[in-house]
Amino acid sequence: MPAETIESFVRNQPRAEMQRVEDYAEAIDALSVCVKACTTCADACLGETSHVAELRRCIRLSLDCADVCALTARLLLRHTEISDLVVSAQLRACVTACQACAEECRKHSGAYEHCHLCANACRNCQQRGSYLIGEVVSFGLGAGAPQLAVRLAG
Amino acid sequence: MPAETIESFVRNQPRAEMQRVEDYAEAIDALSVCVKACTTCADACLGETSHVAELRRCIRLSLDCADVCALTARLLLRHTEISDLVVSAQLRACVTACQACAEECRKHSGAYEHCHLCANACRNCQQRGSYLIGEVVSFGLGAGAPQLAVRLAG
Amino acid sequence: MPAETIESFVRNQPRAEMQRVEDYAEAIDALSVCVKACTTCADACLGETSHVAELRRCIRLSLDCADVCALTARLLLRHTEISDLVVSAQLRACVTACQACAEECRKHSGAYEHCHLCANACRNCQQRGSYLIGEVVSFGLGAGAPQLAVRLAG
Amino acid sequence: MPAETIESFVRNQPRAEMQRVEDYAEAIDALSVCVKACTTCADACLGETSHVAELRRCIRLSLDCADVCALTARLLLRHTEISDLVVSAQLRACVTACQACAEECRKHSGAYEHCHLCANACRNCQQRGSYLIGEVVSFGLGAGAPQLAVRLAG
Repeated sequence: MPAETIESFVRNQPRAEMQRVEDYAEAIDALSVCVKACTTCADACLGETSHVAELRRCIRLSLDCADVCALTARLLLRHTEISDLVVSAQLRACVTACQACAEECRKHSGAYEHCHLCANACRNCQQRGSYLIGEVVSFGLGAGAPQLAVRLAG
Repeated sequence: MPAETIESFVRNQPRAEMQRVEDYAEAIDALSVCVKACTTCADACLGETSHVAELRRCIRLSLDCADVCALTARLLLRHTEISDLVVSAQLRACVTACQACAEECRKHSGAYEHCHLCANACRNCQQRGSYLIGEVVSFGLGAGAPQLAVRLAG
Repeated sequence: MPAETIESFVRNQPRAEMQRVEDYAEAIDALSVCVKACTTCADACLGETSHVAELRRCIRLSLDCADVCALTARLLLRHTEISDLVVSAQLRACVTACQACAEECRKHSGAYEHCHLCANACRNCQQRGSYLIGEVVSFGLGAGAPQLAVRLAG
Repeated sequence: MPAETIESFVRNQPRAEMQRVEDYAEAIDALSVCVKACTTCADACLGETSHVAELRRCIRLSLDCADVCALTARLLLRHTEISDLVVSAQLRACVTACQACAEECRKHSGAYEHCHLCANACRNCQQRGSYLIGEVVSFGLGAGAPQLAVRLAG
């Protein structure tokens, strides 16, 4: 789904007026791409008949990264009664998972195109996630008080 | 993510050679859009301050539909050792969830743009899912023997 | 979590008065056990250093079954505005996934204890799911009108 | 599922020999209970006919907490090629989500038994998660080098 379509979903959220809608849309899009890339990569590694064993770490990290990114996208799609503490902690876990998976996939990028695509998707997702965390940190982090949405609105 | 990008992921699957890659890519894309639309719609309904109670059914069905579509997309992204029985049973559950959610959301389409967008996303997803089921039925259904992928390749 | 604890959760659901609470609690418990067994089995197969390739189908079906059961449990835990069509379609997909996984795991039961445990968990889950479907069928299935809960109340 | 059953799953993991198996089993059990409690609570709040609006924050945080705990349990169930950085980051996100949900649910504990049960499940889960994080910190955290499992084995 192109980021503009996600943007239209996000814009039609009754509490979304003040958000940096595009930042959100791009992060959610990157997460969605990453879920697909990681799920495909884990599965494709499993299908590499005589090399499954050496791709074990790649499979594991791709499974984790797909799960973590799917969850993170889900949290970002929800705007009602956001807990900024929860969202930012999850963003950090997501960035960590993307980095670990990207590093491992990059080792196999030369041999397998699915690893190459997955490494790129993870890197992009990691960058978008880090950027969102940066936004949160710049505008301060209280004990769940004001909404992430409001902060991001700048 | 545009369908072409998903196509590149799917193509780089070692067992994908014979698949109707575009059909898969479009179904996965429709599912992914539907997850976002339903998650947003459930959350946005929750945010409609004085109308939450009347949107209760819409929230419930959107939560279910988001969960069902996310799972179905995940199964379709995996090509290694597919069980056609499992995949087609899940596709049927997905089509049912999309239809139920679309019907409910359409009732609120005039009042809420998020319901309108969600109804459309569900309808599209339902059609893609039904089409894939049709493909499976046309080519027969054995007890998990040949791969759905091979059948769909025609 | 023992079934009694789940029962206390289910009982404290404002719409649960008339449900066959124990049937639900036992099905949810079986699904929860199955998620754990399948996730563990997929992972343990991946860890069987020199046998990963021959366990590929087991890994795939266990991943699918874990995902399908986790989703099905989630639907059963929700009682507000149930769509009986959606729930029963998902139960059928779940029973199919459990059967496919149990069959494959049983082939490796002699060699691997994790496959043995997983086959048992899948069988139990399949039986609980089939029983719930039977209940639904016995009490009729309308187009989403009365709640599954009410029907099951007998 | 009682912790002993999970323990038998975990023990039959080829890489689990050295783990503090019981700690893991108890954490996974607490997470599993919390997923059920939060899913039920969000749904039950939605069913509280005339009070849905005031329970909005409770619904949101329960949905998030259910999603986060389900993911965290999944990561802990996997022992092959663990990334301790990923797992500990996810544990932190989980503890944060549990705390936020427990706090909100406690406000409604007097009025709703489902909120009371959910608050307790979240607190227990938060404590188990914090304990596991503490174990990781005590044994050091390198850049993904030795396995969390090995560290926890003490």
